[in-house]
Amino acid sequence: MTPEEFRKAGHELIDWIADYRQKIPDLPVRAQVRPGDVRRALPADAPAGVEKFADLMADIENIIVPGITQVQHPMHYGWFPSNASLASVLGDIASSGLGTLGISWESCPSLTELEEVVCDWMRQLTGLSDQWRGTIHDTASTACVTAMILARERASELSKNGAGLQGMASPLIVYSTAQAHSSIAKAVQLAGFGNDNLRYIDEDPYTRAMLPDALEAAIKQDLAAGNIPAGIVCSVGATGTTAMDPVAATAAIANEHKVWLHVDAAMAGSAMLLPECRHLWQGVEQADSLAWNPHKWMGTILDTALFYVRDVEHLERVMSTNPAYLRSDADGEVTQYRDWGIPLGRRFRALKLWFHLRLDGIDTIRARLRRDLDNAQWFKAQVETADNWEVLAPVQLQTVCIRHIPLDAQNKPLNGEALDQHTLAWVNRINASGAAFLSPSVLDGRWMARVSIGVEGTTREHVERLWQLLQDSV
Amino acid sequence: MTPEEFRKAGHELIDWIADYRQKIPDLPVRAQVRPGDVRRALPADAPAGVEKFADLMADIENIIVPGITQVQHPMHYGWFPSNASLASVLGDIASSGLGTLGISWESCPSLTELEEVVCDWMRQLTGLSDQWRGTIHDTASTACVTAMILARERASELSKNGAGLQGMASPLIVYSTAQAHSSIAKAVQLAGFGNDNLRYIDEDPYTRAMLPDALEAAIKQDLAAGNIPAGIVCSVGATGTTAMDPVAATAAIANEHKVWLHVDAAMAGSAMLLPECRHLWQGVEQADSLAWNPHKWMGTILDTALFYVRDVEHLERVMSTNPAYLRSDADGEVTQYRDWGIPLGRRFRALKLWFHLRLDGIDTIRARLRRDLDNAQWFKAQVETADNWEVLAPVQLQTVCIRHIPLDAQNKPLNGEALDQHTLAWVNRINASGAAFLSPSVLDGRWMARVSIGVEGTTREHVERLWQLLQDSV
Repeated sequence: MTPEEFRKAGHELIDWIADYRQKIPDLPVRAQVRPGDVRRALPADAPAGVEKFADLMADIENIIVPGITQVQHPMHYGWFPSNASLASVLGDIASSGLGTLGISWESCPSLTELEEVVCDWMRQLTGLSDQWRGTIHDTASTACVTAMILARERASELSKNGAGLQGMASPLIVYSTAQAHSSIAKAVQLAGFGNDNLRYIDEDPYTRAMLPDALEAAIKQDLAAGNIPAGIVCSVGATGTTAMDPVAATAAIANEHKVWLHVDAAMAGSAMLLPECRHLWQGVEQADSLAWNPHKWMGTILDTALFYVRDVEHLERVMSTNPAYLRSDADGEVTQYRDWGIPLGRRFRALKLWFHLRLDGIDTIRARLRRDLDNAQWFKAQVETADNWEVLAPVQLQTVCIRHIPLDAQNKPLNGEALDQHTLAWVNRINASGAAFLSPSVLDGRWMARVSIGVEGTTREHVERLWQLLQDSV
Repeated sequence: MTPEEFRKAGHELIDWIADYRQKIPDLPVRAQVRPGDVRRALPADAPAGVEKFADLMADIENIIVPGITQVQHPMHYGWFPSNASLASVLGDIASSGLGTLGISWESCPSLTELEEVVCDWMRQLTGLSDQWRGTIHDTASTACVTAMILARERASELSKNGAGLQGMASPLIVYSTAQAHSSIAKAVQLAGFGNDNLRYIDEDPYTRAMLPDALEAAIKQDLAAGNIPAGIVCSVGATGTTAMDPVAATAAIANEHKVWLHVDAAMAGSAMLLPECRHLWQGVEQADSLAWNPHKWMGTILDTALFYVRDVEHLERVMSTNPAYLRSDADGEVTQYRDWGIPLGRRFRALKLWFHLRLDGIDTIRARLRRDLDNAQWFKAQVETADNWEVLAPVQLQTVCIRHIPLDAQNKPLNGEALDQHTLAWVNRINASGAAFLSPSVLDGRWMARVSIGVEGTTREHVERLWQLLQDSV
């Protein structure tokens, strides 16, 4: 395709995207397709000829769009906000158009240095000290795998350079809580620790926060057994109920026992743009690594996960390679981001954050986050004061965990399996309708509904509409 | 930013990209900036207000572009072709504009099912049997980490579910050659094997291909020592000289000893679009996993790395998580790509391949690849017949490894350190001039120049110009 053909098709695509974004509120939130519908609408054989751009756009409209669950829809309350602000989309388009290659500083100095700058801006905007240096990963899951490998290599004194994890005489142990995101257990497994060596520490029964005394006791028990405490993952805003592990108390224990502390603030990191929320990760300065996703609530389009460490030397010792074909005169003077993560090649992701911050502005972003916090408190108040409705966990940020608990034939609150069936039934009714979407999840072995507020377009009016929908649905 | 503001800025950006792509041939190939130049041109403090789109574009033009090494430049012969075809750029823009979230089939059925379809198309187009199922990773490095974890978990009988790699009584071993990409050793280290347990098998001194007898001997020696052979990485087109390990012979050994065989065809996979090249990975059907990057020579914009496995059940057992908040009615009927790799969230990457294949067409792509093979043979012939120039390795595809070896004062061919200095001097002269770019690399302990042909815009005329430049530079 020539630049002139691109120009023509590109203009059509931009118009299509602008129109599409405008009509999202009129689309069903959850995709209304059945498994296999999209696949069956596409040819099973690879295309042989050259096709027209108009035919592709028709397929986007007729096949692809109906198969999209609209996470940009103002009535999307599922999983977590996954905002793709149009300012950041422009940055992403610039990244695609520039067609750069990030495998070393030399292959694209701008890519490396803009990433350094925007990661530092984000550090400042979340109130972190200049002890931290950052990079952009695809997701917090990948950042967590990296953190677990860093923990493993610190506790094993760089076993990777010798006999590996398999050469350790005593098992290395990782600590977290059962509230931690599924990616934590996955990271522990991928890094080779084994599930037996992941300890779920007791939580506060209401806040679901890790109990520091229980952590300390577990570490001491492991030490007494000859095991090696290697890593702790503190969740700041765990997925289920936004549980906040106490970072300061955990960090004190981690530092005392020289255990790597990783703070997973994938969702809640956006809140740290607000000074009034930063008490929620108080003590973070004593952690070793930290990840959060601007591609969630803040709204820099996916994939934009920030990963910060304090000990860059350790990070580079663990993750670095220095093949001959990538050496250049600049080595030693520059950051080589290939030595900060798993992949060698990287896209120019910093542009997304750069465009988002400069075109939307941090004040606009902060005002939106505060709007969502207010909306969550308003919604919580409605649920709390309504008959048969319950708020199940503290509303720390923008997620409200709820159940509707009607009375049964004996005038007793529904419970057990019957309550599960009731919960799933009303949630599924709403989701199937396309009018709104929320994620069911499990708390204390029973289904609940998570109402995660924070789509860019979600105003108070939308939350009011959701509350009406919920009441009508049960 | 509203859709209307996006529309206006988006049109300007498309025009800017089209103009930029047209002027790339007039830019220096290697960025002419010094370490820190880009960073110093940017504010150290996070921006406070809202800025104009025009100011951002001015910064792109004045700060970012000068800091880009132009891998789309027709005189770029460095590292490997990293084509970002404009057809695939349109697909990437569609992905950004749609703003989807890929964390489960339910979160975007189209994302999952289009990825299934295009991975299957790519399977067909490279002549693989339908025993293979594929997914898109960011890079072949990440695919290799995944493959090494799959190897580890097969050899350790899913140790991740128990005591982990650290619970193994005998060390697990991985085999490759010293020609393998740096990401292979990194993957072995990240997966916890330890460097001591990576064996570099002897190579043929000219083709640099792994010697199957040496592999067999090494495995038998490990078995005799009570070690557990776990994985083999076969390079199909190793980075240095495009060395081709013999896949069929290696696979026979792998299967006999039940060792996981991963084929790393990151660069050379593009060649498998050409039936006449497929003998280079003959035996691939007996491998366990396979990765290659359409984002290299084929030209689907980065990040597009294909990862195929035959045993999906093992893959999912190793990589899966099933948190409550991601469960849905569709489970069991659909592919959950989160269980196929490390990250949970994924972008809609399949669109890039879909647009590329349909708008450029496979015939156009194949014709270009053949043009590059011809150009490499032409270039090789020039070097071979010129005085004092040498071709150092078989030209299997589009990379030609060369040295200029002048006579010294005693009329003897330059060698040792003096030859190294000469090589680096003329390569650096060319690279510093901005007229062309090629990567120096090391072969048998001495520097050489790699001439990697295959940028979309590189015609025979450009290769002729390069040859003239080389002769003028020494």
